[in-house]
Amino acid sequence: MFKYSPHPLSPLSIEETNLARDIILANSSSQEVVQFRMTYTQEPKKAELIPFLELEHSGQLRSDTPRPARCARVHYVSTGKTQKDRRATEVEATVDLTEKKIISKDVLGSEFLAGLSTWEFDILVDVCKASPMFKERVAQFELPPGFDIIVEPWPYGGMDRPGELRRYFQGLCFAIDTSTKNPDSNYYSYPLPIIPVMDFEKREIVRIDELATGGGDDELVAKAPRTGPIIQHCAPAEYVPELLPGGTRKDLKPLSVVQPDGPSFSVKDESLIEWQKWRFRVSFNPREGAVIHDVHYDGRSVLYRLSLSEMTVPYADPRPPFHRKQAFDFGDGGIGHAVNNLTLGCDCLGVIKYFDGVLVGADGTGEKAKHVICLHEQDNGIGWKHTNWMTGRAVSTRRRELIVQFIITLANYEYIFNYKFDQAGAISVETRATGIVSVVNIDPGKTSPWGNVVNPGALAQNHQHIFCVRIDPAIDGHKNTVVQNESLPVRRDARTNPNGNFYQVKDTILSTSTSADACPENNRIFKIQNLDKKNPVSGRPVGYKINPPPTQKVLADPNSIQAQRCAFATHHLWVTKYRDGELYAAGEYPLSSKKESGGVADMVARNDDLLQEDVVVWSSFGLTHNPRVEDWPVMPVEILELNIVPVDFFTANPALDVPSDKDITSKLTNGACCKSEAPRL
Amino acid sequence: MFKYSPHPLSPLSIEETNLARDIILANSSSQEVVQFRMTYTQEPKKAELIPFLELEHSGQLRSDTPRPARCARVHYVSTGKTQKDRRATEVEATVDLTEKKIISKDVLGSEFLAGLSTWEFDILVDVCKASPMFKERVAQFELPPGFDIIVEPWPYGGMDRPGELRRYFQGLCFAIDTSTKNPDSNYYSYPLPIIPVMDFEKREIVRIDELATGGGDDELVAKAPRTGPIIQHCAPAEYVPELLPGGTRKDLKPLSVVQPDGPSFSVKDESLIEWQKWRFRVSFNPREGAVIHDVHYDGRSVLYRLSLSEMTVPYADPRPPFHRKQAFDFGDGGIGHAVNNLTLGCDCLGVIKYFDGVLVGADGTGEKAKHVICLHEQDNGIGWKHTNWMTGRAVSTRRRELIVQFIITLANYEYIFNYKFDQAGAISVETRATGIVSVVNIDPGKTSPWGNVVNPGALAQNHQHIFCVRIDPAIDGHKNTVVQNESLPVRRDARTNPNGNFYQVKDTILSTSTSADACPENNRIFKIQNLDKKNPVSGRPVGYKINPPPTQKVLADPNSIQAQRCAFATHHLWVTKYRDGELYAAGEYPLSSKKESGGVADMVARNDDLLQEDVVVWSSFGLTHNPRVEDWPVMPVEILELNIVPVDFFTANPALDVPSDKDITSKLTNGACCKSEAPRL
Repeated sequence: MFKYSPHPLSPLSIEETNLARDIILANSSSQEVVQFRMTYTQEPKKAELIPFLELEHSGQLRSDTPRPARCARVHYVSTGKTQKDRRATEVEATVDLTEKKIISKDVLGSEFLAGLSTWEFDILVDVCKASPMFKERVAQFELPPGFDIIVEPWPYGGMDRPGELRRYFQGLCFAIDTSTKNPDSNYYSYPLPIIPVMDFEKREIVRIDELATGGGDDELVAKAPRTGPIIQHCAPAEYVPELLPGGTRKDLKPLSVVQPDGPSFSVKDESLIEWQKWRFRVSFNPREGAVIHDVHYDGRSVLYRLSLSEMTVPYADPRPPFHRKQAFDFGDGGIGHAVNNLTLGCDCLGVIKYFDGVLVGADGTGEKAKHVICLHEQDNGIGWKHTNWMTGRAVSTRRRELIVQFIITLANYEYIFNYKFDQAGAISVETRATGIVSVVNIDPGKTSPWGNVVNPGALAQNHQHIFCVRIDPAIDGHKNTVVQNESLPVRRDARTNPNGNFYQVKDTILSTSTSADACPENNRIFKIQNLDKKNPVSGRPVGYKINPPPTQKVLADPNSIQAQRCAFATHHLWVTKYRDGELYAAGEYPLSSKKESGGVADMVARNDDLLQEDVVVWSSFGLTHNPRVEDWPVMPVEILELNIVPVDFFTANPALDVPSDKDITSKLTNGACCKSEAPRL
Repeated sequence: MFKYSPHPLSPLSIEETNLARDIILANSSSQEVVQFRMTYTQEPKKAELIPFLELEHSGQLRSDTPRPARCARVHYVSTGKTQKDRRATEVEATVDLTEKKIISKDVLGSEFLAGLSTWEFDILVDVCKASPMFKERVAQFELPPGFDIIVEPWPYGGMDRPGELRRYFQGLCFAIDTSTKNPDSNYYSYPLPIIPVMDFEKREIVRIDELATGGGDDELVAKAPRTGPIIQHCAPAEYVPELLPGGTRKDLKPLSVVQPDGPSFSVKDESLIEWQKWRFRVSFNPREGAVIHDVHYDGRSVLYRLSLSEMTVPYADPRPPFHRKQAFDFGDGGIGHAVNNLTLGCDCLGVIKYFDGVLVGADGTGEKAKHVICLHEQDNGIGWKHTNWMTGRAVSTRRRELIVQFIITLANYEYIFNYKFDQAGAISVETRATGIVSVVNIDPGKTSPWGNVVNPGALAQNHQHIFCVRIDPAIDGHKNTVVQNESLPVRRDARTNPNGNFYQVKDTILSTSTSADACPENNRIFKIQNLDKKNPVSGRPVGYKINPPPTQKVLADPNSIQAQRCAFATHHLWVTKYRDGELYAAGEYPLSSKKESGGVADMVARNDDLLQEDVVVWSSFGLTHNPRVEDWPVMPVEILELNIVPVDFFTANPALDVPSDKDITSKLTNGACCKSEAPRL
């Protein structure tokens, strides 16, 4: 196979990233200070990329095949050199890396804030700790000896003061018990009832919001700031093993996944993955993390692009300023900046291929982010089985899955994202929520309708997590149609339903861009079909189906800023017409927004014709999380899954040819409790 | 620990089973022929068992501790010895195995049919094949040379002719291609459009129902029986590997689960399982298969009994007599009689403990059913994880699960049932549907609104699978209360919800027996709480919660026999007051019933007080299965799961002390496609 490098979908290398930096800096004036936010591959326009991919798939790529320009997209902020000239200009530039020139430069309008950068968070912490106002306020809490202050930077939720649109950040404050002599002592169990707010441009703490610490019977806003001992009724809640009072359990025996002949997948070009008839590319970018491209099964096109587009986490405690606890974890600052560096033997088992990413700091220099994605196989029980009742012969196959995983940490909380491919032609997107639930200080002995007391003095607030997965399908081509499919009861009727057992299966074509909702009582699913191509066996259009998880939508009042910022969370499904660059369910700039802008609701409002067009499907689902005590101090994973499943796409079960061989390493045991009591059989 | 045997919950041994047979036969008259249907442990009344279990848990059992009587429940049919005296009396007797006497004998009323026995199915096949009427009818199909007839016995669905309640069975008919010289050639791809109906008492085929073979434009009842070539337009659809045209795929490399130190569980008494702070018993009986008893976590009571209670599979093709395709796979004949003998290295991986069962044939002799349940551990990804963003230290644990699995085959179809226990105190019941979808003959070139053409001439009919799981809780004791819990939107309001972000979490006590439905738009869950015991951290009652899967309920017209037979499938949740022996959601005798009797709807109708009483919770969920071509010839598993999760039962995440050790056998790969291309790193 022809070796081409870099592929138009491949992430930028460190060299390319640095070249983009150099080109931006070479074009900046001596009067400006340039600080970088993110640099990533500018994916080619679809119309340019498709012909290239078609040549690639048909094996016709040559070294002189024309290809889309190799471009970087660079987000940076430009300010003056002096303290007073800190008014920022936010720029997004596209740099042609071959021609070594800037080909476009967009300046962000004043109605938006650019996504935050982690170097800004560092500044918040420094400014806070240096602030006399903050120090003075903290001193009033009379922390016990040995306790230090932790300021945890958060995005500032929707701006709710008239005319306000400023680059604010907020700090959640905790105390850490240094007497443990362990830097990983869990400080979340000692929450302080203040939130300092920083104006980033001014580099100053503009105010400190005071938090009520009462229970359900108390007022929403405390009459006066709390002073005096504030964490004395709190208690440790450690999770690192060396600090657990009883240590770790001793009776868990090793369970290993062993692949003596190596994995069944191959990786070429550092982005092209082939496994069990699947062929796709994986890339990494700072906004979306791992992205899946150009998915084929057995040579047939299934998806053009699959990504996690956005998520929001609104908190439901009505006491101001908690309504400003609302994260947009993809859009606020780019989920790729929060990514974990995965560790062999911890984050997955077996034989693992890791992918590194490239991220930039404020100086724009590319830095390797090690092991940000892992690729591995797993066994998920029986795949299909049938026993012939007459002969007694069973044929049973295992269900092997290929997983593309990445994990992120956002302050207290983590998300694990898995793209899963199975041998029967299905893809799923799994989310696992874990980490430490967000807690605030509550007075001793009180309980609250706004959350649950999970540790003495620590109230875990009720909240939601709502994800949005973007599915850009290409079912045997790029012209597809979305069809709502329902199973509906039918009254008994002598002519058509004489015994009352019939139910009707009804298709409704979604012929213009629209939103839709899950409706499990109607078994409502959505098929993405190519109406121009019929399955030769069933005569029905080839397709894939989505069964949108019927989870609760955003609960905030529709007129609230919280709800208006996340229109994508007000319906389970959105169907829009493809446009280059429209990748983000809540729009490109959710940071401190008052309202979703450029998100799925705006796309749908174009009322585009979607009959055999280039459709995009967005699936929003989530978790209403009213914390249990069991979610503390680190919560067991809560798992959600979106399934994308072939429906009359193939002419039989695609996993029919999976071998039904016995695993010869499995062993019998008689279950005696100790190895010495009885030999294993 | 004191060795007591047999435990009151343990399944009958072969010796005990034979003793029960001997006692029944010794008490029968010389004029009667006794044929056995099933023999199993008569579980003690709860009021008798609880004191025994309490002594057991507190370590106070002695060899002379009084214990509940050891009894067998025996179902048998008694007939006269002559051909004309075949009127059957169906008896269910309780035999005291210690006292060696029959202590009760219930004769089944004429309004019910006793559950079927597999030896009756054998008779159906024999009678059919010997029937001149049947042979003559089959001859009219002009089968090609080399094709033989298969008659597949099915229960006869709801009796729908006035006054009819007879012991009928029906046979679904197919042709098998013997030219393959393979007895496992898939005969389902050659369906014949007849259903012979046998009157079991008369041992004769009373009629042959003729099936329409048209498409959606044709009438529900064909004008005349189909004759002439009938499978000539059908085609092979093999699934055994040696008959696959292209063989099996070659690029799947071994993936093994290795447990060098053995499993983490222990099994005592052949029924007591201890694993990771869990302690419970498993038993096997012919009606329900594997049953879980007396579940404790860390010494605290969680459940008294957990079982799969019933399932129904109604078919939706309105053409008579397809409305009689409605299985009750637990109640029709006892799911234990359909159980697979599991195979090492196929049905699960790792180190496996198998349990055998005991089943009886018509002569009542106990026969060992080998490996009917397997017990094993599995890894299910990350269990919990947190990375300290300041120190960069990640603590990550795996999620180990313990699985109690059994698998059943019902003619064409299989179900895989898994009881799963995790380290965080949760239990789930997983169902996997697989096997071969039920197909009927369809004329060439036609399509149908009643199903999907999955192979030439083979129409897979639309149908539902609705399961019911019975949960008999014992949350820190036997007096529990079920509380409906919802998260509800609240309008913005200056006093209570000034920013509109608040939502209300509302509890509603279910204080009398009732049915209820899932309502994901309200995030409706059901907590089973012990109101007498508060969580010391949160102050809320200790409990477990159920999030009932919001799947579609039975679709058949409420006035249809199909719907009336499965009232349990008309709501997602039923809450009833415990009574000894009430184990079956659709009643004890669903075979050919016209209406559910003695099922959950009848139990609820007692209107029992359920505030801190001995409650039982029944969860009905399922799958509306409109077959895809991909479900053919053997369908990839469709997975459903019911979760039973602690909510304020513990004082922290129970899995907090799970070790976060690295798996040292995991390996890196660079993903090169062949082993020889690059060394593994």
